[in-house]
Amino acid sequence: METTEPGTVRLEGVLADRDSWTASRCSIDKAFSAIGSRSALLMLREALYGTRRFDEFARRVGVTEAVAAARLRELVELGVLEKRPYREEGQRTRHEYVLTQMGEDMLPIALALLQWGDTYLTGPGGPPLQLKHIDCGEPISVRVECAAGHEVSAEEISVAVTPRRGGRARTS
Amino acid sequence: METTEPGTVRLEGVLADRDSWTASRCSIDKAFSAIGSRSALLMLREALYGTRRFDEFARRVGVTEAVAAARLRELVELGVLEKRPYREEGQRTRHEYVLTQMGEDMLPIALALLQWGDTYLTGPGGPPLQLKHIDCGEPISVRVECAAGHEVSAEEISVAVTPRRGGRARTS
Repeated sequence: METTEPGTVRLEGVLADRDSWTASRCSIDKAFSAIGSRSALLMLREALYGTRRFDEFARRVGVTEAVAAARLRELVELGVLEKRPYREEGQRTRHEYVLTQMGEDMLPIALALLQWGDTYLTGPGGPPLQLKHIDCGEPISVRVECAAGHEVSAEEISVAVTPRRGGRARTS
Repeated sequence: METTEPGTVRLEGVLADRDSWTASRCSIDKAFSAIGSRSALLMLREALYGTRRFDEFARRVGVTEAVAAARLRELVELGVLEKRPYREEGQRTRHEYVLTQMGEDMLPIALALLQWGDTYLTGPGGPPLQLKHIDCGEPISVRVECAAGHEVSAEEISVAVTPRRGGRARTS
């Protein structure tokens, strides 16, 4: 059994011999690649801040309309934004972009980045924004926890391959 | 007071008028830009899995030695990896790369990406890996919580500008 080094997880079962595998189906990689670019991430941040309209996305992220259009189209295709028609009195029909459940579920990603950036990458003034729970006023953080509610660090985590159900192939 | 839409946070104070500001000092942006690339993120994933040696980083991430060297140098400069000399019997001195505290604190970022990727981007076999708390065996997740322990969704979060201490400028 390999001992767990500080800051690293414990690899178990077939994973314990790191020379025998590489992370070819990694969800970290898939998720990062799906976001794809800084401008896509900032579009998602803006959606989280309540931005819905095309020109507001372009202006607030600081990109050209062509870039904003490309990013929004990609994010709709990915499934994190939904394109909805709306029409104001006397105007032609336009579209707005609203977070789907898949998009809302990116909140922990955005806030984990925020928390780490706040801790290590802010200037002498400290974090520019304060996030609080509206109900109780307490500050917000992102925590790694087990289902029993224990906060865990990397060295307290075991990583194993998901067992195949009933011994059948995963693709069944 | 603006009402909070599903999936979006509540912007308070000077932030409430979205037309009056853009997120020029955003820690989400800084953190994402600091990671910089897919290969850098995968280097960090490997460090979390216990990889320390140059050739193992290159092989496991699937990049050339030149790319691995560039990424590792950048991650050392950023401060998330530390380069340490080691020497095996009868060999010349080599270097290994170990997570710093700043690097260990990226765990919530990696696991938030993992969780979202597991939920939305895996094939029919489901998530390839199971992460458990070693002490109690319960599965691991990343949660957005307040300091009072309440799990919160985006619409339960207020975002405000950090007040300046004693009315002095932030740069003092």
